[in-house]
Amino acid sequence: MVSTDGTAATTADLGFARLDLDRVVRTGDPEVVFGAGKTPDQIVAALARLHEEHPGRAVLATRVDGEARTRCRERLPGARVDDAGRTVTLGEPPAPRGRVAVVCAGTSDLPVARECATTVAVFGAEPDLVVDVGVAGLHRLLAERDRIAGADAIVAIAGMEAALPTVLGGLCGVPLIAVPTSVGYGWHMDGLTAFLTMLNSCAPGVVTVNIDNGFGAGVAAARVARQSVAS
Amino acid sequence: MVSTDGTAATTADLGFARLDLDRVVRTGDPEVVFGAGKTPDQIVAALARLHEEHPGRAVLATRVDGEARTRCRERLPGARVDDAGRTVTLGEPPAPRGRVAVVCAGTSDLPVARECATTVAVFGAEPDLVVDVGVAGLHRLLAERDRIAGADAIVAIAGMEAALPTVLGGLCGVPLIAVPTSVGYGWHMDGLTAFLTMLNSCAPGVVTVNIDNGFGAGVAAARVARQSVAS
Amino acid sequence: MVSTDGTAATTADLGFARLDLDRVVRTGDPEVVFGAGKTPDQIVAALARLHEEHPGRAVLATRVDGEARTRCRERLPGARVDDAGRTVTLGEPPAPRGRVAVVCAGTSDLPVARECATTVAVFGAEPDLVVDVGVAGLHRLLAERDRIAGADAIVAIAGMEAALPTVLGGLCGVPLIAVPTSVGYGWHMDGLTAFLTMLNSCAPGVVTVNIDNGFGAGVAAARVARQSVAS
Amino acid sequence: MVSTDGTAATTADLGFARLDLDRVVRTGDPEVVFGAGKTPDQIVAALARLHEEHPGRAVLATRVDGEARTRCRERLPGARVDDAGRTVTLGEPPAPRGRVAVVCAGTSDLPVARECATTVAVFGAEPDLVVDVGVAGLHRLLAERDRIAGADAIVAIAGMEAALPTVLGGLCGVPLIAVPTSVGYGWHMDGLTAFLTMLNSCAPGVVTVNIDNGFGAGVAAARVARQSVAS
Amino acid sequence: MVSTDGTAATTADLGFARLDLDRVVRTGDPEVVFGAGKTPDQIVAALARLHEEHPGRAVLATRVDGEARTRCRERLPGARVDDAGRTVTLGEPPAPRGRVAVVCAGTSDLPVARECATTVAVFGAEPDLVVDVGVAGLHRLLAERDRIAGADAIVAIAGMEAALPTVLGGLCGVPLIAVPTSVGYGWHMDGLTAFLTMLNSCAPGVVTVNIDNGFGAGVAAARVARQSVAS
Amino acid sequence: MVSTDGTAATTADLGFARLDLDRVVRTGDPEVVFGAGKTPDQIVAALARLHEEHPGRAVLATRVDGEARTRCRERLPGARVDDAGRTVTLGEPPAPRGRVAVVCAGTSDLPVARECATTVAVFGAEPDLVVDVGVAGLHRLLAERDRIAGADAIVAIAGMEAALPTVLGGLCGVPLIAVPTSVGYGWHMDGLTAFLTMLNSCAPGVVTVNIDNGFGAGVAAARVARQSVAS
Amino acid sequence: MVSTDGTAATTADLGFARLDLDRVVRTGDPEVVFGAGKTPDQIVAALARLHEEHPGRAVLATRVDGEARTRCRERLPGARVDDAGRTVTLGEPPAPRGRVAVVCAGTSDLPVARECATTVAVFGAEPDLVVDVGVAGLHRLLAERDRIAGADAIVAIAGMEAALPTVLGGLCGVPLIAVPTSVGYGWHMDGLTAFLTMLNSCAPGVVTVNIDNGFGAGVAAARVARQSVAS
Amino acid sequence: MVSTDGTAATTADLGFARLDLDRVVRTGDPEVVFGAGKTPDQIVAALARLHEEHPGRAVLATRVDGEARTRCRERLPGARVDDAGRTVTLGEPPAPRGRVAVVCAGTSDLPVARECATTVAVFGAEPDLVVDVGVAGLHRLLAERDRIAGADAIVAIAGMEAALPTVLGGLCGVPLIAVPTSVGYGWHMDGLTAFLTMLNSCAPGVVTVNIDNGFGAGVAAARVARQSVAS
Repeated sequence: MVSTDGTAATTADLGFARLDLDRVVRTGDPEVVFGAGKTPDQIVAALARLHEEHPGRAVLATRVDGEARTRCRERLPGARVDDAGRTVTLGEPPAPRGRVAVVCAGTSDLPVARECATTVAVFGAEPDLVVDVGVAGLHRLLAERDRIAGADAIVAIAGMEAALPTVLGGLCGVPLIAVPTSVGYGWHMDGLTAFLTMLNSCAPGVVTVNIDNGFGAGVAAARVARQSVAS
Repeated sequence: MVSTDGTAATTADLGFARLDLDRVVRTGDPEVVFGAGKTPDQIVAALARLHEEHPGRAVLATRVDGEARTRCRERLPGARVDDAGRTVTLGEPPAPRGRVAVVCAGTSDLPVARECATTVAVFGAEPDLVVDVGVAGLHRLLAERDRIAGADAIVAIAGMEAALPTVLGGLCGVPLIAVPTSVGYGWHMDGLTAFLTMLNSCAPGVVTVNIDNGFGAGVAAARVARQSVAS
Repeated sequence: MVSTDGTAATTADLGFARLDLDRVVRTGDPEVVFGAGKTPDQIVAALARLHEEHPGRAVLATRVDGEARTRCRERLPGARVDDAGRTVTLGEPPAPRGRVAVVCAGTSDLPVARECATTVAVFGAEPDLVVDVGVAGLHRLLAERDRIAGADAIVAIAGMEAALPTVLGGLCGVPLIAVPTSVGYGWHMDGLTAFLTMLNSCAPGVVTVNIDNGFGAGVAAARVARQSVAS
Repeated sequence: MVSTDGTAATTADLGFARLDLDRVVRTGDPEVVFGAGKTPDQIVAALARLHEEHPGRAVLATRVDGEARTRCRERLPGARVDDAGRTVTLGEPPAPRGRVAVVCAGTSDLPVARECATTVAVFGAEPDLVVDVGVAGLHRLLAERDRIAGADAIVAIAGMEAALPTVLGGLCGVPLIAVPTSVGYGWHMDGLTAFLTMLNSCAPGVVTVNIDNGFGAGVAAARVARQSVAS
Repeated sequence: MVSTDGTAATTADLGFARLDLDRVVRTGDPEVVFGAGKTPDQIVAALARLHEEHPGRAVLATRVDGEARTRCRERLPGARVDDAGRTVTLGEPPAPRGRVAVVCAGTSDLPVARECATTVAVFGAEPDLVVDVGVAGLHRLLAERDRIAGADAIVAIAGMEAALPTVLGGLCGVPLIAVPTSVGYGWHMDGLTAFLTMLNSCAPGVVTVNIDNGFGAGVAAARVARQSVAS
Repeated sequence: MVSTDGTAATTADLGFARLDLDRVVRTGDPEVVFGAGKTPDQIVAALARLHEEHPGRAVLATRVDGEARTRCRERLPGARVDDAGRTVTLGEPPAPRGRVAVVCAGTSDLPVARECATTVAVFGAEPDLVVDVGVAGLHRLLAERDRIAGADAIVAIAGMEAALPTVLGGLCGVPLIAVPTSVGYGWHMDGLTAFLTMLNSCAPGVVTVNIDNGFGAGVAAARVARQSVAS
Repeated sequence: MVSTDGTAATTADLGFARLDLDRVVRTGDPEVVFGAGKTPDQIVAALARLHEEHPGRAVLATRVDGEARTRCRERLPGARVDDAGRTVTLGEPPAPRGRVAVVCAGTSDLPVARECATTVAVFGAEPDLVVDVGVAGLHRLLAERDRIAGADAIVAIAGMEAALPTVLGGLCGVPLIAVPTSVGYGWHMDGLTAFLTMLNSCAPGVVTVNIDNGFGAGVAAARVARQSVAS
Repeated sequence: MVSTDGTAATTADLGFARLDLDRVVRTGDPEVVFGAGKTPDQIVAALARLHEEHPGRAVLATRVDGEARTRCRERLPGARVDDAGRTVTLGEPPAPRGRVAVVCAGTSDLPVARECATTVAVFGAEPDLVVDVGVAGLHRLLAERDRIAGADAIVAIAGMEAALPTVLGGLCGVPLIAVPTSVGYGWHMDGLTAFLTMLNSCAPGVVTVNIDNGFGAGVAAARVARQSVAS
């Protein structure tokens, strides 16, 4: 066995999945329920079991569709459900250490931004949402520059031509995670254009996650922020 | 025959190509020699024949490689040769009507910018070259905003993430042609990234040409500028 | 603040979006409502607010679906709704300066052509629609050659093999914007074939916009036409 | 054995390849030597052996590079070598039945056109080469319309935007094979653009072969022409 | 005007389209109605008008969906409707000249094969349908070899790995048109795999049309067959 | 440590690489030297060290270029060097268990076939090479059917349209590994066409490796053959 | 005829398809019904006919949708229907020879794993299903290492980043077939990412099948296992 | 001017480029010289000028080719030149805050790893290089687990199937940046395979940079590490 502390690894068998209860020991955070492809009942059961295992720490489900969110509201009293971000949280988030600026270019990017902000909170940092500051109206972005540059980590979310992270990366030196979104029209290849833009940014140090992956960016940003000295 | 004025179409047979002498009647501009794939002697012959046909109007060859440029210098006295932009011009350009701002993001984009500027002059407008104003240092671009916004047409040239045309398109309403360049590193697909960025610009009215096609953008911009009322 | 005239930038916060009221100062034209992904009520609210801000100048919404067009008809008396082009206009267009020939190859390209024509009018030029002149029946196109060549700008719209802009570009020297459409069958990659054809046109000076982007072409063409000396 | 006439199939083992001597029985034409990737000596040996087997009928090698063409000139007296089309022919072509119009858009397409024309002759039809009739100067093409429309088959060869086969397909009803060439600049994907254009032609009945495959088109066209009633 | 006989070109304006009545003069065959994207009433109107213009010659509509086929049955007495091939024919086909073997690999390819066979008949040749002779069971194909090799043209239709045309091309020398179909599972890119296979066939002279384009192959094959001396 | 038998894992540090000496315990076969990107001296050193560790069992280097093969001949007496397959073997192969038919379509596929055959021998089975049996001449393949069908495993190697594995898969039920090669011309995407063909084979049970990966196929086939009951 | 034993090949004509009854002679296994695209009645008829022909050997249908599974339950008493794997089996599987470990990374891969396991049984080996052992929790995989390494063949099924086969390939030397699944989110190209990962595995001898093709992997693995000496 | 502190932005014009001297104020770090495409003299000049401007802080050039490295050694006494990583550093790096584990899978990934490590040092953190711990030999990686998990940030560098970051991401919760490398053979699309693998990692919070971009990952990791509380 490779459990890092030498004890037997524990998993919880729910019939439809084996929960990795050991993960919090290895990585510092409990497993998260990825809701896509699961039934409402499976999501409820997984959240309940994880909450039982980690009573003092919020647990999270992402990509939870409408029917499953309704089921969570009925079966999991105390759950916080975010319809825009399609997340469900159960239990109290840790006291936040560090602040993450979650910045998005347009209102269409909001679902991704909210998934990201909720994730940041569950993983132990404070999310600070800055919406609708795309570069076609530069003044909107520059007006928020100091607030953004003062954070411990930045998540910059954009679709279409996705120039936002590059402009931000030229304005401040905070660790910056770019999230491409599948927002656009014509030939944008479901967000691949935004993704390629971010990957080729002339601003040094920009890192990316997969298209629409607000969750992944939130995990990374929270881990950066919560270990920051300045928070 | 479909010659637009009812007369017989004229072509000049050079053995290796038939020059379309009629083009100036149909489109207002003489044929241009595309140098790639032609021998130095073929380029010289084509330029000489076009100049003979259009003595009062500069004629142009593009994508002329080093050996062919040397041959043009030897054989075509009076030819203007631009090594950076790989162009050769023979005869006097028309008196310029209108001004075209040719703006590029980085020094690596300069060859494309110079090909464009020369084309603008040959097609009858005044080129105004603005270099190295990429968006990672926004102040460099904003310092030139008024000069650019006062032109009759803009050509915005950029590689890598190619955010420049979008930022420019948010700062002024002049007709704007974006040229992607094959400048970048890692996975940028020889300029396709820049191209996709431009194509998906959230600034309305941005139009594009093919990758590295400074010539095509120059033709389009000159045609716009020279018919402009403000020039 | 980077507002170009030194005053504070103004934005209108509608809850779901911040309208960029300053844009008319920077670029000469008000913001346009992109209807895709917005609810009927959001489109109505955005149009009403923009109209209030710009009472003497038509404002436009594009990609407005059937339900939203019905809502606009009910809530916005005086709005002009185009079902084929999926646009809604509120207020009087500016007096047209210059004429734009909006040419399309087949009847399937008509929705894109109408979106383009309406945009041309809202942005201040006169649209002139020429339909069903594809190159498989050359005589149909040649019969309209003089009308097209006399315009201040041309928008050439085509799907399938998209030979139209190249043939037109060989027949006249007017600024020409090509719009690929997602019309075709078999392997055409949702219009990418038409797009590649236009991008590789052997006629010099052809510029393009994204697939089906009649709006973008209309903005560009209107800006060219309205500043033309000959109009 | 599946030899179609019940006799044993014959192959000639040259050490580096087994020639399929039976092919003429099954398909009516002998095997052709594909020169790419073969040494000069291998090409010479294969041609000599095929000629020995088919003394009354020309045999062909394609894609023969410069060094191998020199070797063929030295070792195979009577061989006809075409440097532009990179072919070598040994023996007399059959008396031609039917005529194939081999039409190409630009001079850069000439190597493919010549490979095609030679193949047509070796496979038993008469090639008729029509060069430099691209659609950017329509009058050049229309002047040759009757000559082309009177052939038994047409091969239309074009690179760049490749509009030629579509325009031709609208002007006549002869069987028409389109050959895309890898001629272009900017993003044309080594001829894929031309290929997609041909594949999506709005003219009915256009068929295609692979990029630069003048040989394949020649085989197909000759087979059509030589069985035609009008020849 | 470029009408080939010097008279005025005629088109029929149906409101939603201009029929190209001149086409039969230029190409020998009347225009065909492409049903996709047209309403049932438009298809009926177009067929009726074409039939009126060409009373002695069958006219064809392809890609006619279920509702439109029902409308054709109601409104166009005498129309022949093929549900599998999604075609509607009105009027008598010409007396067939020449025979076309329409060969398909699997039963899933049948809709494409039937569209092809009907087109062959309308364009004046005799279709001969050979079904379910894929190469995974070679004996089924070899048993039909002589019937296929005796035709004036072959259309070989296959999806998945599409080996059929290559095997056929090695067994006979008849003009052979390959049609890739979008039949497969896993990663086959909607028929692109089959298409690439055909394009790279090691059997010389194989030509292709776009994916699922039974109509285009039928036009080409009929034109070949009907001019054949042996028919 | 996770060594599967509880002992410490052993690695040999050569300065430029750590050899995985433990691999033979975990997988039954020693590590293989992948020569691409290594200097001649590094290849010699790695082979020598592996041979020292596994004196009773041949060790192998693949993708060894010309200069490195010369160095191996000089420095490693007793090494068997295959120039066509670019492999070097040191030590005696195990006594073969089972036979692998290594079948290739054309002579251009031979380098891949030889790399495969050598690998089969080194991994403990007997290779049986069958060359030049492509499907364009079916009789050549059918003549070898029984020899191939009697093997314990088949490796079928083909480029271009790659129909060979499908035809073979329909003729026998032996475990069959298909290897696509980068052999072709025109648009074949460096072997991707062959690869897609194999992946979409209608013959059940065909498995594939990467393009030109004769080594990988050889490892897999040898493992199958050497555990076969019939060998 | 090429039937391998000289007798006439037999096929059963069901109207909608010709069953290849001869296949069991040529390849050792009867034809399998691929349910996608077939009606429920066609699936029932094909299974019944195959069962009649092969009474002593189970016959299989794959990709059977819900409605067709219901029909099979009603019409084919004794059929075994697997809803998760979408398979229907009729008749007794052969006595198993050899064991195949069918290993999958996540619960979302289960449908593919079950299709594979059923196929393994029908083709004559014993399937051993190991679920939810993805590499993000290595201890789950290592705990099952000995069970997996003791099988005669391994099928490793994974989506997303698909690291499982590489890790397994480093832990044991059993013949290993990797199956990519279309499980993932963001830009994974419907399983192509997993596929590419498997194709580029640094563990030697990993072979692959098409995305989600549990059937193909099952056929290959069963053929390997049932001829193994150790079973 | 938009300089963030209200003063005039300063740039240094070197003739071939304008250095952005203001960047250190906006982002905390000076501009870096990207050596690709620059002449040896240009690189020397840019480094010298940056060093003059930032005497107390190391400045860096990346992608410096052999000739330019020699020139730097001659002209810039005190410069540190890394041939493997192709970097040149001038001046003293800041005292390191925090530690970055730079982990790579194979020796071929070393150039990228060294570029990354040098960048980490120049940007103010301590690099800790861990080489040759690919997942095909898991024990090598697990032996280093604690050392890696104790860092403030991890850069995980891998080519081929690139499973390393996923396995690492399951073993620890430190911020983790994955770098795909263009190392592989067969169809790996110059590193795109590795990139896609990382992008689709099932381990939460993995972020990526472009292919071979050790520099970008180094900047990001150093910024994370140097602001960490634990350093």
